[in-house]
This record gives sequence, C-alpha cells and structure tokens, in this order.
Amino acid sequence: MDDDDFYDRNLALFEEEMDTRPKVSSLLNRLANYTNLTQGAKEHEEAESIGEKKKTGKSPQMGTFMGVYLPCLQNIFGVILFLRLTWVVGTAGVLQALCIVFICCCCTMLTAISMSAIATNGVVPAGGSYFMISRSLGPEFGGAVGLCFYLGTTFAGAMYILGAIEILLVGAAMLNNMRVYGSICLLLMSLLVFVGVKYVNKLASIFLACVIVSIISIYIGALVSAFKPPNFPVCMLGNRTINGHEIYDSQCAKTVLVTTSLWKQFCQGPELNSSCDEYFMTNNFSEIEGIPGLASGIISENVWSSYLSKGDVVEKGSLSSSHFSHPASTHQPYVFADITTSFTLLVGIFFPSVTGIMAGSNRSGDLKDAQRSIPIGTILAILTTSIVYLSNVILFGACIDGVVLRDKFGDSVNGNLVVGTLAWPTPWVIVIGSFFSTCGAGLQSLTGAPRLLQAIAKDNIIPFLRVFGHGKANGEPTWALLLTALIAELGILIASLDLVAPILTMFFLMCYLFVNLACALQTLLRTPNWRPRFSYYHWTLSFLGMTICLALMFISSWYYAIVAMVIAGMIYKYIEYHGAEKEWGDGIRGLSLSAARYALLRLEEGPPHTKNWRPQLLVLLKLDEDAHVKSPRLLTFASQLKAGKGLTIVGTVVSGNFLHSYGEALAAEQTLKHLMDKERVKGFCQCIVAQKPREGISHMIQSSGLGGMKPNTVVMGWPHAWRQSEDPQAWKTFINTVRVTTAAHLALLVPKNISLFPSNSEPCTEGYIDVWWIVHDGGMLMLLPFLLRQHKVWRKCGMRIFTVAQMEDNSIQMKKDLATFLYHLRIEAEVEVVEMHDSDISAYTYERTLMMEQRSQMLRQMRLSKSDREREVSEDMSIKRLHQSLQQPPNSLYFRDRAVSGGGGGSSEHHRRVQMTWTKEKTSQYRATHSGCSTDHSNVRRMHTAVKLNEVIVNKSHDARVVLLNMPGPPRNQEGDENYMEFLEVLTEGLERVLLVRGGGSEVITIYS
Amino acid sequence: MDDDDFYDRNLALFEEEMDTRPKVSSLLNRLANYTNLTQGAKEHEEAESIGEKKKTGKSPQMGTFMGVYLPCLQNIFGVILFLRLTWVVGTAGVLQALCIVFICCCCTMLTAISMSAIATNGVVPAGGSYFMISRSLGPEFGGAVGLCFYLGTTFAGAMYILGAIEILLVGAAMLNNMRVYGSICLLLMSLLVFVGVKYVNKLASIFLACVIVSIISIYIGALVSAFKPPNFPVCMLGNRTINGHEIYDSQCAKTVLVTTSLWKQFCQGPELNSSCDEYFMTNNFSEIEGIPGLASGIISENVWSSYLSKGDVVEKGSLSSSHFSHPASTHQPYVFADITTSFTLLVGIFFPSVTGIMAGSNRSGDLKDAQRSIPIGTILAILTTSIVYLSNVILFGACIDGVVLRDKFGDSVNGNLVVGTLAWPTPWVIVIGSFFSTCGAGLQSLTGAPRLLQAIAKDNIIPFLRVFGHGKANGEPTWALLLTALIAELGILIASLDLVAPILTMFFLMCYLFVNLACALQTLLRTPNWRPRFSYYHWTLSFLGMTICLALMFISSWYYAIVAMVIAGMIYKYIEYHGAEKEWGDGIRGLSLSAARYALLRLEEGPPHTKNWRPQLLVLLKLDEDAHVKSPRLLTFASQLKAGKGLTIVGTVVSGNFLHSYGEALAAEQTLKHLMDKERVKGFCQCIVAQKPREGISHMIQSSGLGGMKPNTVVMGWPHAWRQSEDPQAWKTFINTVRVTTAAHLALLVPKNISLFPSNSEPCTEGYIDVWWIVHDGGMLMLLPFLLRQHKVWRKCGMRIFTVAQMEDNSIQMKKDLATFLYHLRIEAEVEVVEMHDSDISAYTYERTLMMEQRSQMLRQMRLSKSDREREVSEDMSIKRLHQSLQQPPNSLYFRDRAVSGGGGGSSEHHRRVQMTWTKEKTSQYRATHSGCSTDHSNVRRMHTAVKLNEVIVNKSHDARVVLLNMPGPPRNQEGDENYMEFLEVLTEGLERVLLVRGGGSEVITIYS
Repeated sequence: MDDDDFYDRNLALFEEEMDTRPKVSSLLNRLANYTNLTQGAKEHEEAESIGEKKKTGKSPQMGTFMGVYLPCLQNIFGVILFLRLTWVVGTAGVLQALCIVFICCCCTMLTAISMSAIATNGVVPAGGSYFMISRSLGPEFGGAVGLCFYLGTTFAGAMYILGAIEILLVGAAMLNNMRVYGSICLLLMSLLVFVGVKYVNKLASIFLACVIVSIISIYIGALVSAFKPPNFPVCMLGNRTINGHEIYDSQCAKTVLVTTSLWKQFCQGPELNSSCDEYFMTNNFSEIEGIPGLASGIISENVWSSYLSKGDVVEKGSLSSSHFSHPASTHQPYVFADITTSFTLLVGIFFPSVTGIMAGSNRSGDLKDAQRSIPIGTILAILTTSIVYLSNVILFGACIDGVVLRDKFGDSVNGNLVVGTLAWPTPWVIVIGSFFSTCGAGLQSLTGAPRLLQAIAKDNIIPFLRVFGHGKANGEPTWALLLTALIAELGILIASLDLVAPILTMFFLMCYLFVNLACALQTLLRTPNWRPRFSYYHWTLSFLGMTICLALMFISSWYYAIVAMVIAGMIYKYIEYHGAEKEWGDGIRGLSLSAARYALLRLEEGPPHTKNWRPQLLVLLKLDEDAHVKSPRLLTFASQLKAGKGLTIVGTVVSGNFLHSYGEALAAEQTLKHLMDKERVKGFCQCIVAQKPREGISHMIQSSGLGGMKPNTVVMGWPHAWRQSEDPQAWKTFINTVRVTTAAHLALLVPKNISLFPSNSEPCTEGYIDVWWIVHDGGMLMLLPFLLRQHKVWRKCGMRIFTVAQMEDNSIQMKKDLATFLYHLRIEAEVEVVEMHDSDISAYTYERTLMMEQRSQMLRQMRLSKSDREREVSEDMSIKRLHQSLQQPPNSLYFRDRAVSGGGGGSSEHHRRVQMTWTKEKTSQYRATHSGCSTDHSNVRRMHTAVKLNEVIVNKSHDARVVLLNMPGPPRNQEGDENYMEFLEVLTEGLERVLLVRGGGSEVITIYS
Repeated sequence: MDDDDFYDRNLALFEEEMDTRPKVSSLLNRLANYTNLTQGAKEHEEAESIGEKKKTGKSPQMGTFMGVYLPCLQNIFGVILFLRLTWVVGTAGVLQALCIVFICCCCTMLTAISMSAIATNGVVPAGGSYFMISRSLGPEFGGAVGLCFYLGTTFAGAMYILGAIEILLVGAAMLNNMRVYGSICLLLMSLLVFVGVKYVNKLASIFLACVIVSIISIYIGALVSAFKPPNFPVCMLGNRTINGHEIYDSQCAKTVLVTTSLWKQFCQGPELNSSCDEYFMTNNFSEIEGIPGLASGIISENVWSSYLSKGDVVEKGSLSSSHFSHPASTHQPYVFADITTSFTLLVGIFFPSVTGIMAGSNRSGDLKDAQRSIPIGTILAILTTSIVYLSNVILFGACIDGVVLRDKFGDSVNGNLVVGTLAWPTPWVIVIGSFFSTCGAGLQSLTGAPRLLQAIAKDNIIPFLRVFGHGKANGEPTWALLLTALIAELGILIASLDLVAPILTMFFLMCYLFVNLACALQTLLRTPNWRPRFSYYHWTLSFLGMTICLALMFISSWYYAIVAMVIAGMIYKYIEYHGAEKEWGDGIRGLSLSAARYALLRLEEGPPHTKNWRPQLLVLLKLDEDAHVKSPRLLTFASQLKAGKGLTIVGTVVSGNFLHSYGEALAAEQTLKHLMDKERVKGFCQCIVAQKPREGISHMIQSSGLGGMKPNTVVMGWPHAWRQSEDPQAWKTFINTVRVTTAAHLALLVPKNISLFPSNSEPCTEGYIDVWWIVHDGGMLMLLPFLLRQHKVWRKCGMRIFTVAQMEDNSIQMKKDLATFLYHLRIEAEVEVVEMHDSDISAYTYERTLMMEQRSQMLRQMRLSKSDREREVSEDMSIKRLHQSLQQPPNSLYFRDRAVSGGGGGSSEHHRRVQMTWTKEKTSQYRATHSGCSTDHSNVRRMHTAVKLNEVIVNKSHDARVVLLNMPGPPRNQEGDENYMEFLEVLTEGLERVLLVRGGGSEVITIYS
C-alpha cells in the first residue's frame, strides 16, 4: 500500500487515467516476453501460446546458413537443371539462354527483396509466406495467393515425379509409361509422407548433398573436358543426327562389308541394290564428337538459337548436306524435336528451376534472428543459384555439341542424360544424384503442400476447405494429403514435364506477383506500420518485379496466365462473399483510404457540371424520447430517389452535452445505421450532440460531407401537426432549417404526410407523379420524378407536368414549347397548361388571411407584454407551456378547418363553401382595421395565390400518387414565420402526398449532351 | 405596368425570388429556340450561334436513309472486300472466315448500340463522334480517343491509296512500285482535297454507286456461275499452282511438240534431255477450273482452313502429288504465299472493312431528327454490310477453287482480281468499281481526318496541336491537311495493305473501345443526366463490346495493341498536365464520385486495425479579425507529419450568424485553401459559422469527416500567453476542446510555441527528437517521431526515448526491455531510463501550487459574490473586461515568473533558485489555512510531479529539436481548469518546442507483422 501511494504520488499528473493509460515501467514489465499488447495481438498470442507448448523443448536456434541458406538452395535447385537446361541452351542458344536465366533470376531476386521487406516488418508468428501475404494483403488476396502457391507446389510435386521417371526411363519417355510409373511413384511417395513425414525431413540434407555433388561433378567435368574430352561419338547422316538407339550394331556407316542396321532402315531391303531413301543415298555418314570440350570453341556454334518445330530433325548447321527435302516420316532413325519450341515456351519450362525462394521464410519460427537471417540467406541463395545457372549455361554451350544439346532425351548419345555426358568421372553421378534429389524434392512438395493447405483451411477464410484443416491425431493433414495427391495425379496424367512446368510457373509467378504487389503497395501507401527492418527495398524494385512476373506469365503462355488469373479471381470473390471475415490489418484498407482520398480530392476541383448533378442527400431525421426514429419513411423516400448511387448522409441531432452523451450519440448512430440497413440505404450517418438542436442542425448542414462529397440537397420532414404542437420549437426549427438550407445554397425536399408515402414493398401499379412547375428552380422538379421512376416502387407511375398560364401567356404555345422542352430533356411526361385567369381575390382568401393574421397578432401582443421573455423564445424551453395555453383559442378555429379539409382529396369545393358562410363581414371588418398595412396586403396576395393554386392543384391532381410543388422561400424576417407555415398548409391542403421542392440555385438538368 | 402588377399579384407566393427563379411561362418563352439555359449551355450556345450563321440558308432536313444509312454504307464497304475477302476465305476456310467476319461485325454492332445511346442522350451540337466521346468521357479521354480516331482515319487513307494502286498494278505488287505510285497518288489526292473539297463531297454518291454495282455484279456472277461457270483455267503441276504470269505461251503442259516456256523454267536448258527439277519430272501438268461455280460443291474443299507460311506454295489438297520436297527456290514459277498467315493476322487485316460506323453520327447537325435517325440508320447499315460480308464469304467459298482464293494477287488467273473472276458480266466491273470506290474512300479519309484534327485542335485541349486549328480564309484546315498527308505517306511507305491494315485496326478498335466504355460507365454510374432516347442499350452489351474490342486488339497483334495503348496513354497524360482545363461535365467525375463512395463505404466496415492506424488529422485553426490564419505554422507541422498520405481536414469556426455570413464562411474557406496550397497540404477544409465558437468546435469535432475518413487526431495550438490574455474564452475554449476530444476518443496533439517550429524550408541538420514516454498511451509517442522523420525537415534528427523509473523499478532491466521493444517496433532510437527517486515534495512545489491556488481562489471568490453572473461566464462576453481588471494582481506575479523562465532552455536551475527565496513561509502559511482540503493535496502532488518532471526533462532535453510529452487529462470538473493550465505550463517550462500528445484510447503501433 505504501508503495502504491508513493507511486501514485510520484506521477500524480497522470494518475486519474492510470487504469486506461499504464505507466511505461509497468507496460515494459508486461512486454518483457512480448505478449499482452492490447489490440491486434490477441490472435497472435493465441497462435503463439499453442506454438509455445510444442516449442518449449527446442528454442529457435538456427542461424542464417543452416536455417535459410541451405533450405533455399535445396528448394531452388531442381530437376530442370539436370533434365532441361542443356536442351534450353541448345535450342535457345547461349545468348538467349542466358537471357532466359537472367530474367527468371531477376524475377526471383526482386521478389526476394520484396519478401524480405515484408518478412522483416515485425514479428512473423511462425507460418511463412502464406501468413506474410495474407496478413499484409488481407484474407481475400491472401487466400487466393495461398491457394495459387498450394497448387504451384502440388504441380511441382507432379513435375518432380515426372522428372524422376524421365531420368529412370531415359530415352524411352513414352507417354503411357510415364503415366503408369508416375502414378505408382506418386502412390508410394504419398504413403511414405503419410506414414513417416519425419524421415522426409531428415533426408533433406542427403538430397541436398546429392545436388551439390552433381553440380560439382559437372564443373569438374567441364574443366576436365578442356584437356581430355569424354568420348561420346554422335552419328550423323549428312547434317542430320542419327538416333543412337537405332544403331543396333554400333556402326555409323552405310556399309561395313555387309549393310548395317542403318541401311535396313533407310532402304527397302538389306541388299545393296534395293531402293533407298534419297537423302540416305546422297549423303554420307560421319561421326562427330558429342562433347568436344571446353577448348574446342564449339560455343561459337551454340551461341545463336535454333528453334525447331515438332517433327523437325535435329541438324548440325555447320555440316553440309546435299539435299533439302524433309524426311518422309518420323520412322526414319533421326533425332526429332518432340515439341515446337520458342523463346517464350522455354521461359515457361525453365522458370520452375528458380522457384523455391520462400523456403527460408517458411521457417521463420525456427530462426534465431529471423529478421536478419531471412533477407541475407534468401538473397545469398538466389545469388548462388543464379551464378550456377548462368555459368552452367556457358559451360554447356562451350563443351557440348549443339546437336547433343538439342537432343532432349539424349537419343544421339545412347540415351545418356545429356548433362551426364559432361559429368566427371561418370554420367552415373548425375543420374543417381539427380534422381535422388528429384525424388527428395517431390517428397518435400508432397509434405509441404498439404501443410500449406491445412494452414489456409485453419484460417477458415475459405469455408469449403474447412475439412482439410482436420488431420490425424498427431495433426498430420490426412485429407489435405489426399487432395494434394489427387491434384498431383492430374499433373502426372499430363505425362510431360514440358507441359506441367508452365502450369506451375503460372502459379508461382502469380504468388510472386502478389508478394511484390504487397511490398509496392505498402511502400506507396506509406502505412505508418510499414517499417521493415530490411531497408534495401524500394517500390520501383517491387513494381519492376511485379511487371516481370506479369510479363513472364503472359510471355510463357497467355492462356494459362488468363486461366490462372481467373482461378485466383474466383477464389478472391468466393472469399469475399463466403469467407469468414478476418481483420488482419491488411494493406487493402490503406488502399481504400488512399483511393477514397484521391477520388475525393479529384472531386474537389471545381463545382460539378450540370450534367453531373445528382442528388447528394442529407436526410435529417429526428429521434424521439426512446431514441427511435420519428419518420423512418423519410429514409425510405430517400432510398427511392436512387440516391444510393449518389451520396446519402443521414444525420440527426441529439440535444444534450457531448461530454456526457458520447454513449448516447453512439447509440443514436447505431439506430440510424440499423434503419439504413433495413431500408437498404448505402451511405453514412452522422450524429451531433448539441446543446441547442437548432445550432446543431445548422452546423450539420454546414459541415457534413467531405470535399466533393458534400450534400447538395437536404431532405427533412414537415413538422406534422405543428399548429397543435405543444412545442413551437419544432416548426421554428423547421423554418430555421429552411433558411439555413437556402443560405447554404442547398436544395431542399420536404415531403408532407411522409407516413402516407409508399414503402419499398408497396409498388404503385398505376397512377401519376404530378409536377406543378410554377417557377423554374434549376430543374429539380423535372429531375426528381425521373429519379423516382428509376425505383421499382414508382416505375409504373406516369409523369404529368402542369404549368400555370396566366392572362398574358399563350397557353397553346406554352404547351407546345413545354412538350418540345421535355422531348429534348428525354423525359416522358404528359403536359398540361392550366390557365389561371381569375384575378379576383376571393373572400375566402381574406378570411384565411385574417385568421392567420389574428393568430399571429395575438401572439405578437402577448410577446410585447412580456418583452423580456421574447429574447429567450428561441432558446428557452419554458415558453412551451406558455404557448400551449395561449394557442388554445386560435387552435380551436383551425381544428375545425383541418377537420373539414382533412377529409380527402376531392373535398375542396365543399370546403370552400363551408368557409364561405361566416367570413364576408369579418373580412371587411378586418380590411377596415388593417387597411394600408403593406405586409397585410402582401399576405392577402400570397394567400390568394396559395388558395387559387391549391384549388387548381387539387382539381387536377387529387388522384396523383404524389404531387411535386415548388416551395416558396421563407420570409425575410422572422415575424412572418407563422404566416409562411400557414401559406404552405393552404397550398397543400387536401393533397394526400406532397413533395415540396426548393432548388439550390443551380441548374440540375440540361437538354445538351 | 398594370400587367406587371397583375402578374406579381397572381403568383405572389413566389414573387420574392422571381429574379433568381423565373416563372415557367417566361422560361418557356425563352426556351422556344433552346438557348439561354443558364449553366453548361453557354459554350453550346456559342458554338451554335456560329453554326447558325452558316446554317441559316439550309435547315437540317436529311432523313434516316439519305443522312445516315447511305453514308454509313459507303464508309463501311471498302477496299478489303474486293482485295482481301477472297484470300481470307481461302486461307481461313469458310468456317473460320465466317467466324472472323462475325466477330468483327459483332464488335461494330455493339459499338453502334453504345454510340446510339450516347448520341441520343441530349442535343449533340454538330460535331460527331469526337464530340460525343469527349463530352461524355472528358477532355483527357476525349483527346486521346479523338487522336486515335484521327490516326486511324489517316492510316485508312493510306490503306485506300495502297489498295487503289494494288488494283491498278495487280499481279505485280512490287514494294517500291507501291511506294512510288502511292506517293504520287497521295500527292494528287491531297491537292484535290486542298483545292476542291466540295467536289469530293459531291462525288460521294458516285463512289457509293460504284460499290453497289460491284457488289450486285458479284451476286449475279455467283448465281450465273451455278449454270455457266466462267472460264478461268488454272495450271497445276502436281498439286502446285503455277503462276499464270509465267506461262508466256499459254501452254499448261511440259511439251507441246517443243518444250514450253514452263519447261525452260524448271530445266537447265530447253532440250528435252536437259536436267530438270525433280518435282517437275515426277509430276504432270493439269489444268483445273478456277471458278467451278456454285453448283460444283467446291465448298466442301474450302470449308477448312489452310494457313500457309511465307514462301509456301499454294497447293490444292485434293490433287495428288508424287513428291513432297520443298521447291528449291522462289524463282520457280509457282504461286507462293507472300506472308505467313494465321487466324489472328486475318482478323487484323479484315477489321478495317467493318469500320466507318461513325459516318452517320458525324452528320448529326444535318439531320432532321438526329435522335431517331442515327440509331436506326447506323444499325441498319451494319446489318446490311454484315449480311453482304457473310453471304459473300459463303459465295466465294462455294464458287471459287481454293487455290485461286488463296492466290492473293490472282497470279494463277492471269492477274485478274480474284473477286473479279466471279463478277458478271466481266471482271472489269469490279476493277473499275473497286478502283473508283477505293479512290473515293481515300479522298474522304483525306477530307475527314484534317477536319477532325482541326476540331480537336480548336477545342484547345492539346496545346501542341493548336496550329492545326487554323485554316485557310474559308476555314479549310491547311496545316491539318499537310500533317495528315505526311502521316498517310508514312503508311504508304510501308507499302503493304496487309501491314497497314492492322495499324488502323488498332486505332479504330481503341476508339470503339472507348465508345463502349463511355456507354457502360454512364449506365453503371446512373448519372441522372444519362437518359438516352435510344433505349435498347445495356451495360452488359457495352461491356461485351469493350471486351471484344480489347480482345481483338490483342488477338490481332499484341505489340501493336500495346503501342496504341501507350500512345493513347501518353496523350491522356499530356492533356492531363498541359491541356486547357475544360469542364464538359464528363462521366469521369461521376466515376470519381462512385469510387470515393465505394472506397469510403469499404472503409466503414469496422474500425481500423492497429496496423493500419495512421494519423487522420483535424487541424483546428483560428482566424483573426482580418480573416488571416493565426498560427499557419500549425499547418506546416501537420504537413510534416506526412499526413498528406492520410487525411487532413483543416477546420475553422467563424463566429456569427450563418444566415448572414455565408460569404464570410466562403472567404474563410478560401483563406484556408490558399494556406493549404501554400503549405502543400492536400486535404479538405471546413468552415463553420457558429454563434458560439465553442459549440461550433464541438460540433466540428463530432461531425467532420465521412464514414471511414473521420479524423482520429485533433491538432490545435496552445493558447499562447493565456495568462495575460484579455479574453478568458481562449483558454476556456482550449480546455473545452481537450475535453471534447477526449470524450470523442480522439487523439490530441498540442504543439506549444508553434511559431518556433521549423518551417518546411528549414530542415534540421542535426539534433534529436526527444520522447518522454511516461504513460503508455497507445503508442502515439513512438509513432509520431517516426512519422516526423519521414519528412525532409526532420530526416536528419535522431530520436531519443526517455522513460522514468521510480523507486520500485529495475532501471537496468527497463532499459533492456525498452530497447528490445523498440527493436521489435523497428524504430531506431536511443534509449534512456531516468531515475526519479526523490520523493520529497519541494518547497518550490508548494509555492507554485500556492500561487496557482491563490489565483484560482480569488477568481472563485469574485464569482461567488456575483453569483448571478456566474452562469453567463461561459457565454457572455461582458465578463471579459471584468476578468481583465481582476486578473491584474495575480498576473503581475506570473509575469515575473514568465520573464524568468521565458529566457531559454537551460535556465531551470537558476529559475528554481530565484523562486526559492520568497516562498517557504508562504507555503507553510498556505498549508495551515488549507490543510485537509483534498483538492489542495492532489494539486500539490500534481504540481510536484510537474515540477520534478520538468526539471528532469529540461536537464536531459534542453537541446532537443522538439520534446514530445504525454499530455495529462483535463480535470473532471471545471473548477480545476486554471490549475490544469498551470500544471501544463510548469511541465513545459524552459523547453523551446514541446508537443503535448494525448492518445485516443486505442493502440496505434504494434510489434507484429
């Protein structure tokens, strides 16, 4: 306790908040073993606490060399080096082969740099590349890329198996043999993985040793060849290579006293006078040295490409031949090209031999210092392999004859592996070394792929993969292994290494592309959290890597590329719709933010053009005491305006003190959000806690929105039953809002009787939307029905436009003009011009005006007598009760009025007659007392307009689904507020659904394209 | 006057605003001839008023047939039909040829649909497709697409000329001949266009007639061939076609008593026993019918493709041949393929024969009812031409032998146009017809292209083209014609129709792609202005069209496609940077809006992850009386936080009544914008006019931002010299804002002495950013220096982190922990743990507390005596003067204090001593009077912390560039406000630049990846 007291005293400035803001020393204590960071760390913790149980025995102690460099090396070197590199050199020529190797190595090097940056950006909780990508690009990309990586690894397994079989069956690579032996091999390997995965891991170093020994034997062989070339004679007929398998008697000659086996194959019979192939006749056999050796200068022959078409004979350009005719059939004993080659194809075939760079980062959990080891180890391994490949390209080109290089299966050298011919001391070093390393790589693929699938499945982002998350009792992923084996079997059924290689190339390139993308994105977005310890990255490098990946994909095979992209895209979309929602703090959110910011900043350049005007609504809702929305139908109406494609901000003002009402504000926001969800309005909501709601509304109208996404239209409800209301604030606030809206140059929509407006589930099947176009107000009146009719509720409603012709107007011409105008506006509507010639101001008008005036006057007098209270009218709530008591008498008048007129649409005639009976004298009396009063005169004129218009409107539009009307402007001084409300009431009397529309002062519709 | 009066009276409700909102009848009067629409119509008006002068004579009176259908027809039919369609059919086979034609026609049909929608979306002020695209996609796209269209048209001119020459020189299409004759032809045509463009237009109908006659003659010819095939014998050797030109004696035989001319070409000498070509020896000559006719069933031979490589001999598959050797040289008299063909190549060559669909829409100005005629006419024309092409493919395949079809230049039929051989009554109909129509098309291209260029140049969106806007006195575009001729000459120098065609294919496809894009975009974005009269469009169709365009581009030649896209992209960027800014109300703004909305809605899903936290600043600026920003350096500091990549909202509150201060608010906004431009802060600004600034700030903090782009950090200045200020509102508002910020869970940054902070042009070359990490507040303290150091001003500053160890802490372990923590945070900083063991509360503390208490107490007493005023303190300005007079005595104390401590960083020791001299007794006195008072006790403790901390901080960080400090929370009740300010003053005393930091309650930094 004493300590505590001291501690409190000692940092007393901050004591009030010690519970939420811990003192640094106590935080550091807790941080000592990196747990307990509040947000974002929880799932890591869980993962780690599970991991820790296992790891307690062995602490991560591997260094850069053992932990990253060697695994990478082993994964990168592969079957292609032994089986295809010679052929690539022979076909593409040394220069282009160097180019291929260089591009592929560049691609992986750049990817490794990006990967290093990602891997060193914070603690990677054991899991490797999939985790890295998914945590920095989000579940959608992560899942898609993870599955690509999985498929790539699986097909790599198939490729290794095919390679192993090819080494075994060398020279007789029949498709069906491949399939049968390959499937058997796959089955055996899968069983091995199933029963004893730990042996596979232990054998890794043996496999690596095999590779290294093989490579060393190649280097030594190449050096030795400079002094003492190995003896691999190749039999040539003219400039054509003879298939060594077909020389049964090892005689490379036409006749050796008797005819040779070759004679029999070119001629009809064994006799010297039998008819023979013409080429055979005109050319002679010769024997050349298959491996002339480093000192022979053969490289000058190999430096240029010699791509062959399928079925072409492998020829040696430097030898002469007397005849150019094609061989008649592939049964002749030449060495034929088995596929048509091109630069792009070779890229696709070579690429798998540079993959495997993720091997180091996959072991992040076992490393002593992952953030140092991963970049160094991976990049060193890539450099090593690149140098080996590049030097091998040159050595092969310099030591081996072109015809042997181009001879994919070593047919001309008796079925030896071509690369084996160069090996010292014997080709068997390569055969055995490559076979074992290839088998090992296949086993590792079959081990790794199911684990990757299991990890993805356990992340639960791809629901249909869930089953693969389960495993045997010891956690081994049985089902995943099964799936992996099945997919690998597909690859094996293709039965050709040259066809499988491009497939896995695609998937790996896809994965590398996204690694580069993740790095480039995060660098460009400058997320504060992007602080990789590895600092030699740059977004241009990542971008270059990305471009190379994309280019390689399309170069090596554009249709595979498209298929791979479509697969990845489908996975992406699937995860987006069905995947569990994971928040890993991915970079995509940063992208959204940047995109939003960029788009908003673009928008801000200048006001929108008339053509681009679309309603950007600020819907002002009111919450009642129980925090329910008072007129939810207002939002329904907003959603029917198809503003969903524009902008909808739903705002509300809660009265109170913000310092104490944060929770209330959040609750109100939640209420609005729920309502928006219910009404399917996509938009934003805002809640302001204000001490004076009127100020709050004013501030909301001024400040809501951002940049170009500011609302241009305010939607608010009509203060229902304002005359009977206890609270004059409601309609005062209404008029104030109208004024603020006008001052802010925003348009205003006021639906009256909003509760009668149709909900989204009650489509109008017929009827009209009527527009009373009295003053031209920017065209809102024409545009709104068009927008409404885009919505299913209003789709079947017709549109009618009425306009008022007065005495001086030519109504026929007006109608014609209006119709043409609408034609050019591309709006379909019936047009009607209503004539309003009657200029007499009726008694009814006077009476209505009188009633209104009386009421206002009474109020005014009361206010005068209590002048000191007047100032507080707009702010003090105590006036409520006063008002209530005072308004009773006039209200009783209005009640009758309302009761009569409230009956329905068609009652205006009746209505008028009723009112007629008791007003004439009062009117004249009123006129006498108030004559000469200008406001009175204008009020009468206004009331006259209102009454007359109402009469015409009710007459024409009583059956309309909704009537759109110009909303007149509010009076300049506050005295006339009540009159204004009264005018509006009179104007809309007897109409069921009215939408009062006030333009924002700019054109919103144009006839021009 | 009387009328006016009446008019006013009659619509009195709206009279106040009649000046801004015209009555509908008066608007309609003005609209009668579609001018005078206020916004967006001005430039149209101008364009029209110029146009009207010209048009007054002839009113637009053309109908669908004459105005759209025929021009389209004439433009679509072209030279390819006559010169290449037979060859396409022969090479690709009937089926694939149908496929090619179908794809191309689909592409144009879909484009026509999109174009129709665009063309009928409002009045197109004469100008055609370029105007349509530029007005709906904006100047950037418009310019790029317009230039593509221009280049396409120009190359089309070159192609037509090459075609015409090819018709003339048929059978001997030597490259250099083509170049020489083509250039001459181009020169002549250009001169013709230059001197007499009106003749070109008048000849149009003649050209069209030529085409129609030719096509009809083909149909008749095909029908006639069923009964009486024309006689076109083709000489074959074995299955190889013999070049008819080489048969000088018209003998298709080896010997006719004497050796024929053919003999001489295959053999060494004319003698019968001379050595001959082997193929010649073993095969015999035969003569087949080149045009077997409709009834012959030859179609079964032509149905499949037979693509040839360059140099292959055109062979007839159905004939047998005894020997397969390749011809030794191309000097032998066979018909050879001159280029290597493939499906994709043929697409590129055929496509130009479906272009020209814009011809109708280009004439929109001359049409009686453009909105009806353009869709109908264009679509009918495309249907007609499609049917003609498709039927011709079948007819050609059914009437003509494959070897003749594949014989591009008609070598086997004595150099006749292959299509001519089918014509009835004579091939000359086709030769003459196609020659004239081709010349005509060439002339029209040379006429149209310069005009298009002129139109683009006149729009002034591409500055370097400005010169081409000028023309001759009569408006003819001389310079543009010159450029066009030069570019066309480039095409002619290529000298091969087959090589020029893919080029223009690219440009046209590019243009069509954008037409489709424009339509799809506008449909998807649902711009309210998108109301095309032509209603049979759908975004899927446009999208399909777009996809086909893109696919065709890449299929026909992916490198051309990339080049064309790069050209278009460069033009786009050029216009973006250098083009005149035009606001045509393009759809791109709608796209920005949708993008912003989409991105913002994405953002709104859930709060951001710790990893994604970045400062989203709300910078609160204050304007002085002259509407200048008080501390512009605040914005400089915000920009240095690299929040430019996040979000910056700059807000200010103007006090006043919004109804009257709209202009003022706009002016304030402009001031902020200017300042933001000056400080290069990209962001948004907001200005609220509020009657009570404090409320305004509260509402701004609550409501600024939108969705996920709400600020999470408030930046505000320290109320400078608050103790001397006349206006207590300033610091009251400050504390209130701190409270509101805390209540809203936002972070807060308060730079003190902001005017001393470095501007963007004064980079720190050395020194440290010091962080005093006292309580863990989400990590802001660690993140801010990192962010600052991203900016050039702070880049060279080091970072030091200090933390305070108290008695119970193990400071060595703390230092180690802190270092590890920072390592994992990837933040480089020097770490220091400062021990603060001294627990005695010094006399100085008591003295400072006392001073503070005294001051507060005096104020409190004054308030108590005038309790009725107290309520108004926060609202009434009259308290100002009162305060001022009352604060003088305590202020004098503080002035001394400030004067001493204001001296600089290192003076704290001195400072302390000065204060020591006169406080001991006062302190004890104070303690005596106030003992037992809990607030007093806590105040003393707080002051103790402040003093102690300040001492340590000044000691360690007096030379730091900036010191970051935790900001303690404001007191819970308002009584302590002044004390709080005083604590902060004491805490930061003697430090030059201080940044007080208060977290928002969430973690902002994590060690995890």
